Amino acid sequence: MPPSPNLQRRRALADAAVEVLGTSGIHGLSHRAVDVQAGLPPGTTSNYFRNRDALLEAAARRAMELHQADMVATQGPEGAVADQERMVELIAASLYRAATEHRVRYLAIYELTMESTRRPALRRALAGIAGGAHDFTVEHHRDLDLATTREQVGMLITLYGGALFTLVTAPERELTPESVRPIARAVVVGGTAGARA
Amino acid sequence: MPPSPNLQRRRALADAAVEVLGTSGIHGLSHRAVDVQAGLPPGTTSNYFRNRDALLEAAARRAMELHQADMVATQGPEGAVADQERMVELIAASLYRAATEHRVRYLAIYELTMESTRRPALRRALAGIAGGAHDFTVEHHRDLDLATTREQVGMLITLYGGALFTLVTAPERELTPESVRPIARAVVVGGTAGARA
Repeated sequence: MPPSPNLQRRRALADAAVEVLGTSGIHGLSHRAVDVQAGLPPGTTSNYFRNRDALLEAAARRAMELHQADMVATQGPEGAVADQERMVELIAASLYRAATEHRVRYLAIYELTMESTRRPALRRALAGIAGGAHDFTVEHHRDLDLATTREQVGMLITLYGGALFTLVTAPERELTPESVRPIARAVVVGGTAGARA
Repeated sequence: MPPSPNLQRRRALADAAVEVLGTSGIHGLSHRAVDVQAGLPPGTTSNYFRNRDALLEAAARRAMELHQADMVATQGPEGAVADQERMVELIAASLYRAATEHRVRYLAIYELTMESTRRPALRRALAGIAGGAHDFTVEHHRDLDLATTREQVGMLITLYGGALFTLVTAPERELTPESVRPIARAVVVGGTAGARA
């Protein structure tokens, strides 16, 4: 069943909000800027998202939804490959695409993350989204028959998100799939090092 | 020899700029806001830093200078401890202090990092500072008799900076020295996993 017109419109507005956040930063975001970015009449965004917190949360949810769709679509190596090598390839492919093709989306996520330190409602929304993302990624690892623990997945998410912050804020021209692979390896080796403290 | 009055004043203004950036964000920063934060007459900051790029660069240099001073001052375990365990303790202590006592300083650094994606002069300044920080940290590891390569130090910086981003943007009350140690271990294990790709 295709999404309802209402849901399609909400998605289009959230996509536009992500684009504005990632290109103009948190202070470039307004309901009006989203109307313009989406090519819709003034007032449309306000009709769907009544206040700034609702708009920020919608952008965060949409960015994470797209991230998760990409995660599921990313193809890893086939055949009898050790878990660690499979994860390195999956995470390298994911980091590279995130830091090039989808750079704006991840800049938007980091804009929202920084803003959440000053905006309690956004902080609560992001905490909820992060909790859901942890569950989703654990489930995804189960689908891939990876033997990672829930704790390891949490550490992988921390290191992945941190490494990606470095990548999306560095000049894009320095990135190649090869230059990203050692970072993916460090994320995987560090993230699966275990819960020993 | 104590720093000259001119240098002392520049430092005080840069400290105030770091404080404003870390608490109010990039859009809270103005020459006037720094005058107020420093408790100095209107126009003082403009006398020392003629334009916004000069002020942003001064804040970035000051934050990194303080970070490096803390790095050197952090005491690691004594006696015959393996390199990896020494690094875990040093980095755990560093991450914990950075994410608690000095949280505002690191939020300021991440504000500047995000802004650099939209501001070429700041991007160039941060690239220069990052290059110097890499050299400094390699030298520091030599002073500590650690057997890390230059490449490993670069990867440690990437993972450290990324993990710290996660820590300073998460609610502070969740942090304890113990909760930070597994992250430090992941950074060290991942960062020293080698250049194999």
